[in-house]
Amino acid sequence: MLWGGRFEKLPNKIVFDYMNDENDSRLIKYDILGSIAHVKMLSKQNILKKNEADKIIKMLKHLLILHQKGKFQLKKELEDVHMNIENKVTKFTHYGKKMHIARSRNDQIAVDTRMYLRDELLSTASLIIKLQKSFKKLAKKDIAMPSYTHTRVAQPITTSFWCESYVQSFERDLERIFDVYARVNRNPLGACAISGTNWKIDRKYTSELLGFESVIENEMDAISSRGEIEAEILFLLSQLMAKLSRFAEEIIWFSESGIIELSDEYTTGSSIMPNKKNPDVLELMRGRTGRVYGNLIHLLTIQKGLMNGHNADTQETKFAVMSGLDIVKETLVVLIDIVPTFEFDEKKMIIEIKKGYANATELADLMVMNEIPFRDAHERIGKLVGQLIKQEKYLEDLEPKEINKILGTNLDIKLIENAISIKKERLSKKIKLNPKWGGKINVELDKIKKIFCTLI
Amino acid sequence: MLWGGRFEKLPNKIVFDYMNDENDSRLIKYDILGSIAHVKMLSKQNILKKNEADKIIKMLKHLLILHQKGKFQLKKELEDVHMNIENKVTKFTHYGKKMHIARSRNDQIAVDTRMYLRDELLSTASLIIKLQKSFKKLAKKDIAMPSYTHTRVAQPITTSFWCESYVQSFERDLERIFDVYARVNRNPLGACAISGTNWKIDRKYTSELLGFESVIENEMDAISSRGEIEAEILFLLSQLMAKLSRFAEEIIWFSESGIIELSDEYTTGSSIMPNKKNPDVLELMRGRTGRVYGNLIHLLTIQKGLMNGHNADTQETKFAVMSGLDIVKETLVVLIDIVPTFEFDEKKMIIEIKKGYANATELADLMVMNEIPFRDAHERIGKLVGQLIKQEKYLEDLEPKEINKILGTNLDIKLIENAISIKKERLSKKIKLNPKWGGKINVELDKIKKIFCTLI
Amino acid sequence: MLWGGRFEKLPNKIVFDYMNDENDSRLIKYDILGSIAHVKMLSKQNILKKNEADKIIKMLKHLLILHQKGKFQLKKELEDVHMNIENKVTKFTHYGKKMHIARSRNDQIAVDTRMYLRDELLSTASLIIKLQKSFKKLAKKDIAMPSYTHTRVAQPITTSFWCESYVQSFERDLERIFDVYARVNRNPLGACAISGTNWKIDRKYTSELLGFESVIENEMDAISSRGEIEAEILFLLSQLMAKLSRFAEEIIWFSESGIIELSDEYTTGSSIMPNKKNPDVLELMRGRTGRVYGNLIHLLTIQKGLMNGHNADTQETKFAVMSGLDIVKETLVVLIDIVPTFEFDEKKMIIEIKKGYANATELADLMVMNEIPFRDAHERIGKLVGQLIKQEKYLEDLEPKEINKILGTNLDIKLIENAISIKKERLSKKIKLNPKWGGKINVELDKIKKIFCTLI
Amino acid sequence: MLWGGRFEKLPNKIVFDYMNDENDSRLIKYDILGSIAHVKMLSKQNILKKNEADKIIKMLKHLLILHQKGKFQLKKELEDVHMNIENKVTKFTHYGKKMHIARSRNDQIAVDTRMYLRDELLSTASLIIKLQKSFKKLAKKDIAMPSYTHTRVAQPITTSFWCESYVQSFERDLERIFDVYARVNRNPLGACAISGTNWKIDRKYTSELLGFESVIENEMDAISSRGEIEAEILFLLSQLMAKLSRFAEEIIWFSESGIIELSDEYTTGSSIMPNKKNPDVLELMRGRTGRVYGNLIHLLTIQKGLMNGHNADTQETKFAVMSGLDIVKETLVVLIDIVPTFEFDEKKMIIEIKKGYANATELADLMVMNEIPFRDAHERIGKLVGQLIKQEKYLEDLEPKEINKILGTNLDIKLIENAISIKKERLSKKIKLNPKWGGKINVELDKIKKIFCTLI
Repeated sequence: MLWGGRFEKLPNKIVFDYMNDENDSRLIKYDILGSIAHVKMLSKQNILKKNEADKIIKMLKHLLILHQKGKFQLKKELEDVHMNIENKVTKFTHYGKKMHIARSRNDQIAVDTRMYLRDELLSTASLIIKLQKSFKKLAKKDIAMPSYTHTRVAQPITTSFWCESYVQSFERDLERIFDVYARVNRNPLGACAISGTNWKIDRKYTSELLGFESVIENEMDAISSRGEIEAEILFLLSQLMAKLSRFAEEIIWFSESGIIELSDEYTTGSSIMPNKKNPDVLELMRGRTGRVYGNLIHLLTIQKGLMNGHNADTQETKFAVMSGLDIVKETLVVLIDIVPTFEFDEKKMIIEIKKGYANATELADLMVMNEIPFRDAHERIGKLVGQLIKQEKYLEDLEPKEINKILGTNLDIKLIENAISIKKERLSKKIKLNPKWGGKINVELDKIKKIFCTLI
Repeated sequence: MLWGGRFEKLPNKIVFDYMNDENDSRLIKYDILGSIAHVKMLSKQNILKKNEADKIIKMLKHLLILHQKGKFQLKKELEDVHMNIENKVTKFTHYGKKMHIARSRNDQIAVDTRMYLRDELLSTASLIIKLQKSFKKLAKKDIAMPSYTHTRVAQPITTSFWCESYVQSFERDLERIFDVYARVNRNPLGACAISGTNWKIDRKYTSELLGFESVIENEMDAISSRGEIEAEILFLLSQLMAKLSRFAEEIIWFSESGIIELSDEYTTGSSIMPNKKNPDVLELMRGRTGRVYGNLIHLLTIQKGLMNGHNADTQETKFAVMSGLDIVKETLVVLIDIVPTFEFDEKKMIIEIKKGYANATELADLMVMNEIPFRDAHERIGKLVGQLIKQEKYLEDLEPKEINKILGTNLDIKLIENAISIKKERLSKKIKLNPKWGGKINVELDKIKKIFCTLI
Repeated sequence: MLWGGRFEKLPNKIVFDYMNDENDSRLIKYDILGSIAHVKMLSKQNILKKNEADKIIKMLKHLLILHQKGKFQLKKELEDVHMNIENKVTKFTHYGKKMHIARSRNDQIAVDTRMYLRDELLSTASLIIKLQKSFKKLAKKDIAMPSYTHTRVAQPITTSFWCESYVQSFERDLERIFDVYARVNRNPLGACAISGTNWKIDRKYTSELLGFESVIENEMDAISSRGEIEAEILFLLSQLMAKLSRFAEEIIWFSESGIIELSDEYTTGSSIMPNKKNPDVLELMRGRTGRVYGNLIHLLTIQKGLMNGHNADTQETKFAVMSGLDIVKETLVVLIDIVPTFEFDEKKMIIEIKKGYANATELADLMVMNEIPFRDAHERIGKLVGQLIKQEKYLEDLEPKEINKILGTNLDIKLIENAISIKKERLSKKIKLNPKWGGKINVELDKIKKIFCTLI
Repeated sequence: MLWGGRFEKLPNKIVFDYMNDENDSRLIKYDILGSIAHVKMLSKQNILKKNEADKIIKMLKHLLILHQKGKFQLKKELEDVHMNIENKVTKFTHYGKKMHIARSRNDQIAVDTRMYLRDELLSTASLIIKLQKSFKKLAKKDIAMPSYTHTRVAQPITTSFWCESYVQSFERDLERIFDVYARVNRNPLGACAISGTNWKIDRKYTSELLGFESVIENEMDAISSRGEIEAEILFLLSQLMAKLSRFAEEIIWFSESGIIELSDEYTTGSSIMPNKKNPDVLELMRGRTGRVYGNLIHLLTIQKGLMNGHNADTQETKFAVMSGLDIVKETLVVLIDIVPTFEFDEKKMIIEIKKGYANATELADLMVMNEIPFRDAHERIGKLVGQLIKQEKYLEDLEPKEINKILGTNLDIKLIENAISIKKERLSKKIKLNPKWGGKINVELDKIKKIFCTLI
């Protein structure tokens, strides 16, 4: 134990078992990078001698290589990624005993997490952009489509309009990612346990080395806020999953009514019923939404009523945010593949539009243009629809003359024909992807690549 | 694929990756038992011939042994535990192709889960009883203790009274476990996909073989209700974790103020501050509460607005309930060990009681017994406490005479002394454990053991 | 202020505003009943003189009448229902100053809440039974119906079978209500602030007067467990709302596909689209599910990490459980009315069954009965369905001979005809309601009525 | 009913009761403003004639005045705020029947909500800034204070440092508010039911009139995204409440240990225990955190698996976001008042620092500066602390010489004295408030004021 001085007995095995967090191994890379930056700074500030720092850094680089080869495993009884690494370094050089000067595991885990989250946010953003591209591909076949409100046919739209609604909606998810990214990309290193240190450290220098935009000035805040950015991320992931669950729901129903046909490759069968072709993947996606919501609740629950300063409760933030990111990324990967394989069934779409009297509003608007107050037009068209349902007829089955007669109007025949025809011109969209996001991601990835070049 | 007939292409690898659920391996034992019972029933009903059934059962028993030796691993591309097992059996005997007659994976997973949950509920109940015993042990040193409301000293109690409050409280957790157990222990097998089967099956017979109390009659309900008992269990686990988090909070604060001393074995140190002795284990326990809440939300979210009948969304119920049970059981194991190691510090407790003027209510009651209306007594004692705080004095520092003078009363000196003394007689408890629960668990465990004897 | 003795300044208005809880007014009745029982007990135990008790009780009864006439309003600056009532009584008789002997607001609110919850649980149970009756009514028209798994047609069922699945499912909700009822119906009165009292009170006597089954022995547990039964109730309400949201979803989709027609009386129109007939009520029901889940999370969050003993955090439990009960009861009331108005459309149901090849499993089973292993039968029928889809044909369009030819079988023609015909016999259900619940409710209501007779 | 055309029966009273949402009355002002802008646009585009528009607008302005005087109440049977207002206008002028041209209640509620949320976000931001100012005030008395990690004394800090940690932390809440504000401040008007309209409307013009930064281009997205910004806001409110609950927890414990004294004005007493002074307000704050979390879960649950397009489920978003905002704002108002009334107890703080051996890390650092490796220094100081605890002594009780002897060092006496003395210089902070936020709020408020001037 690296802290056993005041203890007469060391912790029981039961404690290590309970405290153990396998997710720590996902932070090895970041912990090594953070340690190299810390040691470089200590050397620059003459807190460590150059040869001491060099030896430590040499071993840290070596450990990184071992890790990349899968040859460095964390030991439970050494508690966590930080103590495992310090222990390894110290076995190699007794200068390792000095590498923890002017820092604590509290600021160390904060810096590791932030580096990890930066990478994850960028890769999530990339996947969202890819999904937007999948929708753009799908939109190429641009045909008339029914829209729905209250799960009832509303007005006619087009498939490109529908695709665009998703593409535009994902813009907000990207906005949220970069809003959070700005808060993630701040340097907590140097906050130490909670109140900073008397050593003359240079926090701007480690920020530069690790690619952080700024320093979190108040050290107590840097430590106490653990879980806050994680919660923010889990919220944006929850909101994204909510959206994807709605998309899954749409496709499940569109493929049931047949207006969209799913590829065999993305469906499964029943062990007992030979007739089934089930959209399992989309259902599972919808079900996993709850897991991400649950992780968000996990993080909010942890924070509730927790004393400020570091507390072990926040160890759980790793699991919550990591598994949330995993689920969302896996889901995006599946969707990127599936979306372009959807087949729209034009015939069935037209039938849906007719069955739903989707052009009723246009007919009402036509009446209004002919000086009939909107509410009166709405009333009369409503009655017409009611009659047609009883007669099992569609609007399109009526001659314009008949329509005029029933409505008690004298509308232009051409205009009536136009109003009740299936048109797609108005709503057809040439989907444009926002080039800004790709640029942003590249700029940040470049910065992160530079960190590696500088440190390794 | 065991269902590929109507498909032109088989599912993409990406689908299997996304659908894969490692938790299925925890159900191997139960799936084998359920299959043996099913095949026995088919044989009894002459749906399978005896020799066909025997061959299938032989292989199932063999698989169970392989599994127990760690030599049977599930393959992702065979989808799930059911298809993996059927596939293995069929490799050994082509009669395996018949074992799925008159059942579906839908009732199969339901029966597996219920058998798994029975075992888990019983082992959770056993751990709760052990924890009650730990409190009984701790209660042996029975001394005066302050109680708190609003995190402020209230009235004096005793340590055994405090221990009993937990023991009694856990009774309700046990009640809840057995309430749910009754709903878990019902047989869904034979519900098939959703509407039962035309085969003349005998559901009572499989219930008997598998130890279920009754049959779930309506097959659609048997299938659609997946997630309901899981949610019930996650609620009772959440409520239990809430309670344990409150206990953790109490001990964290009692060990901060020093009225309870934690053993070195259950605390850890700081990597930077040599002075620290931290109750990490208790904090982590408190933090993990949120994970169980999150799992509950996961299950409720899955169920919301889901169409009836089986849907793949409910695959997620396995992860949620299994990881919830794991956390709770691990937490109970730690507490069973820790609780008896607490050391009460009698001296510090007395100081707390005095500092909190904990006997003020008894003094007020004494006044009331002497014909002073309660509200007036409360008022006068309140003023007295206010004065003492300013003078930095305790009630116990005053002579009974002085008290009479300040209060304007003429109370019996002996009675005053008695009212403001630290007594423990009234609240001391000899903690009795409820013998009923142990009995219940044993009865159920016996039944479950009998299943093994009958089937294996 | 009834507790102002030790204070130099009274609370700021801002405090009263923030602390104010309008839900207290829903407890007036119970607080009065509880106070009458308490005062009767104090009199029986000679802690109050008979004439003192009589005067207090007289005023309490008077207040109850005022309340029932809407003439007794709680004042914010008197904090809560308890202090308002004590204040009123004391204005009438100075013996009022004695009514708080040997109790605290902590046990008082607990007893009020439990009496309130008993009533609410019983009325919720009554509504569930009424809803079961609505399903029984609906089941009278018993016709063939498609069932669904994965939102895809599965096998044919009947409408009564479908109705029964809900009726049976609600049985578990009733079980849960009475499981919790047993835990609610225990007497906390006499626990006082947290540690009971030195007064010689008789807790069994108040239990009897107030109709409680038993006494909560450990006083600390009686107080600290506030929120636990409320959480249990919110869980069962959440699970019930989950179920109702699933029912709403089913009906929304069944009425979209047209197999069920909703009455105009329970739908609404669009302000702009004259063609719309929207199932708003069912949607809102689905949306309100989240509110009940939210209230459950509210209660679990409150409990997390809260110190034992009474804390003001738990004041919020009132709002959570009361608004949860309100929503569920209002939702049940609406459903009881709507369900019997559903019109099944037999023609459309038959079409759905055919379109979904719902009889494929029966045909496979027929092959199995003719010695073809189940997996092979499944495979061949699967291929047949695949072909039919391409040809836009149904199973019913084929001659039995053709079927034999395609399947390569020699099945009996009659049996084939039977297998692919729409039959309802097997699944038709005569729905039986469980008489036990009505009995239970009546027994409890009688007890509660008796309380009134005894106390008022 | 303004949409009754196709209906034979009007909705049952039970439907209106269930659908009724009292929160609609909070949107009256915004609905009127939105309608004025819409009608102005219709007039500009020659869809309405100038005199028609003028009459409608005149009545809308009149209604606003009536509303401000409390003389305009919504009627349940007219469904919602939109239909109530259109109904009133139409009673005054039959041109009212034309005001709904080219819009739907779907885009109307979206525009109302966004205007409401803009106001609310700005007022919440103002309150946060006021709370920062309260901390600045409190920081004026700048003295030494213990810091805590794991609820154990860590290192010495100062009160201004502690205050600054909150002030800095609130900066992120303000950032989040303005991040969301940018997404809120976009114009959905003109999206109509879901797919826009054929009328030649000018969405930029209404954006300008109503002060929106931009138009939400895809109409389907404008409608389907209802609930998304509400969820974002509830998340930021949840995160803020989490923080405030942590602050409440700190103060509850600081006032228990006595290092902070609460004013009588913000505490309450017990009805039974005359000795109590309870921090009820802070506890309730902590408890209400769960209510805001619950509202967030409400919104996420609504969104899960919901079909795109408008659905009545989202009616519930009003309640959730409105009550969330109410709670947070009320809580901030209370805190703004309380914070500056805290009294730090310098004497007790020094005792806490000593009792916690808070200077141990500085002593270890001193050893490191004298060439002892950090891990060895940590070990030796840890042992020293262990001994002192047994001897019931503080670091400050030892002579520097003794310290050297025990540690086996030869450290400079002056430096030892310095290391173990209570210093506040290093951590004392002059709290600076970020002027940017106030500026932002003013700019936005000016824009909003301008809307009024233009429209009314």
